[in-house]
Amino acid sequence: MAYLDNSATTAVCEAAVASMVQVMTETFGNPSSLHRMGIAAEQALSRARSQVATLMGAAPEQVTFTSGGTEANNLAILGAAAAKARTVRKAVTTQGEHPSVAACFDELEKQGWQVTRVPLRPDGTVLPQDIEAACDADTVLVSAMTVNNETGALLDIADTVKRVKRKASGALFHTDAVQAAGKLTLKAERWGVDLMTVSSHKIHGPKGCGALYIRKGIRVLPRQVGGGQERGLRSGTEGVPCAVGFGAAAAALPAVSEQGAHFETLRNALLRGIADIPDMRPHLPTGGVPYIVNVSVMGFRSETLLHFLAERDVFVSGGSACAKGQLSSVLTAMGLPEREADAALRISFSHTNTKEDVERFCTALHEAVATLRRRS
Amino acid sequence: MAYLDNSATTAVCEAAVASMVQVMTETFGNPSSLHRMGIAAEQALSRARSQVATLMGAAPEQVTFTSGGTEANNLAILGAAAAKARTVRKAVTTQGEHPSVAACFDELEKQGWQVTRVPLRPDGTVLPQDIEAACDADTVLVSAMTVNNETGALLDIADTVKRVKRKASGALFHTDAVQAAGKLTLKAERWGVDLMTVSSHKIHGPKGCGALYIRKGIRVLPRQVGGGQERGLRSGTEGVPCAVGFGAAAAALPAVSEQGAHFETLRNALLRGIADIPDMRPHLPTGGVPYIVNVSVMGFRSETLLHFLAERDVFVSGGSACAKGQLSSVLTAMGLPEREADAALRISFSHTNTKEDVERFCTALHEAVATLRRRS
Repeated sequence: MAYLDNSATTAVCEAAVASMVQVMTETFGNPSSLHRMGIAAEQALSRARSQVATLMGAAPEQVTFTSGGTEANNLAILGAAAAKARTVRKAVTTQGEHPSVAACFDELEKQGWQVTRVPLRPDGTVLPQDIEAACDADTVLVSAMTVNNETGALLDIADTVKRVKRKASGALFHTDAVQAAGKLTLKAERWGVDLMTVSSHKIHGPKGCGALYIRKGIRVLPRQVGGGQERGLRSGTEGVPCAVGFGAAAAALPAVSEQGAHFETLRNALLRGIADIPDMRPHLPTGGVPYIVNVSVMGFRSETLLHFLAERDVFVSGGSACAKGQLSSVLTAMGLPEREADAALRISFSHTNTKEDVERFCTALHEAVATLRRRS
Repeated sequence: MAYLDNSATTAVCEAAVASMVQVMTETFGNPSSLHRMGIAAEQALSRARSQVATLMGAAPEQVTFTSGGTEANNLAILGAAAAKARTVRKAVTTQGEHPSVAACFDELEKQGWQVTRVPLRPDGTVLPQDIEAACDADTVLVSAMTVNNETGALLDIADTVKRVKRKASGALFHTDAVQAAGKLTLKAERWGVDLMTVSSHKIHGPKGCGALYIRKGIRVLPRQVGGGQERGLRSGTEGVPCAVGFGAAAAALPAVSEQGAHFETLRNALLRGIADIPDMRPHLPTGGVPYIVNVSVMGFRSETLLHFLAERDVFVSGGSACAKGQLSSVLTAMGLPEREADAALRISFSHTNTKEDVERFCTALHEAVATLRRRS
């Protein structure tokens, strides 16, 4: 099998599975219990928090566990917005954001916020100066993703934060770093972001866990109330198994420096291997990450192609998994015509992928193009 | 080890662990992915949904997976309230609710709702007629738990729903059935509730999953927005591992009818075994469930006792795990004086407990009372 859909989700690594089984069958206490079983569970959670903090370039006490990237994005944007509700209500985001960010801004608009959505450049990028230009002194919240989940477009977060804060000193800056985590070095503290989202299941941890970095002193109102867990920010018995799996997966990742060259090799092999397919249009954002490759095979619907490939045990996606069957809003925002967006395939690597996986994809895609009838 | 703190959390059963490992390492696709790996994950989730529906006495399409009981309670109460925001805003709940329900009503009060909290009777019960009496024609939302997590007090939900609907035909009825699930037969459909909460980790499933039953036709606004998963009610990549573990745990439970007699035996042995301890005050709500036993050992702080017991590998709690170190609001609402509430121990059974576990507890408690100095 050549699983090349790692931006949709990943297989859970052995280290994560082993740690989860341990906390489910041995250290299974409730972290809120006062007795030794509770304390042991709290310690397992605390170790996981440190591991995720390291992944984010943050201190453990700034990491709030959530049930996933979507909850972290919702808590960041809607929670920070609620805390700012009495001030001027202007926010800035981009047209390339994940649905879990985009939907939050739609929500804020319904609540009376004025939201500016920075358009994408034709290559899929958003430039720091584009975001800067959209801000003014009244902007109180900005959210822009680190790596785009469909195209691999990369935003220089440190530069963007600097520019935003210069223009709007009171603005909070959030970045959805879900597609960057584990493959690029995240520096929440250093970059100066106020809020940063990561997700477990994109880095070989289990589905059902994410985390939100909250800079010290930043006020976010909880979205889930009850027993006051996670320092009152996120009530509910902590999801210890998935949190521990997330931490173990983060700790088990190879160094980012090792992965980069590997991804470059895979991407180059991929682009070379399919270059001779007629009407092949790769979408390559300037300075994009090498582990997400988006190409349109003109004349074919992506859904048809991906089913053909899956029959050959090659797994990729058309657009993102989260847009299930809908036309990619990101490719549309880049200005691609519908027939090109509708023909897009996303191939996304993990460090576990090999050149053989890529060869298998190239062979299967050639076969698809030779076999399937082009749409008129 | 005698783990008698099963209302705080439970060990994850083998069936749940095995199913989770399977979906994490083999069927690890994203349920939203269009290819075969996605479809297989969707099927695993769908099987889990059926298993949880059976647990609740509901149809699968009425089950929404959440990250736990707290999220389900928040979605039920705050989500239903948001959908009713334009009508008269009167709600009824009880003084015995779990913090994740109580905090939602505090939240509604801040939003301008008029909330009536029905007091507990001295034995810890709330009677259906007490709840009925608190409702009027303008009541639009009622929440009352099935089994109290600290005392085991049981509410006749079917009768309560009937009375509430007679008094307030437009009211939605929610019950937090977290402490009833798996040990009593839940009948969401039959009882006529509109919303019902259950949690995985109280029935030998993993922490990090819960479910909300939503009667057909009932409108609840989502609290987490994004990719539109769970029929738009709860966005975010589904937490497949924990959901599958929850389903497997539900399916692996022994029949409720078998458990009841076992719990009675354990409770009777427990009460007999500690009856000779001076100043022992069991709190036994009329008609309460036999698997939660709450007793105050006057003259001792519960925290001191439970640490002493834990040293002997006997695990119980003082009040609920969720109230970490705080005086139980439930026992206080029953009118117990502070020194009695502060001396409370909760012993909570699972079907896996044995008479030996109970004997071990009784022996250790006798030892504690003989060894520890009574407070003046």
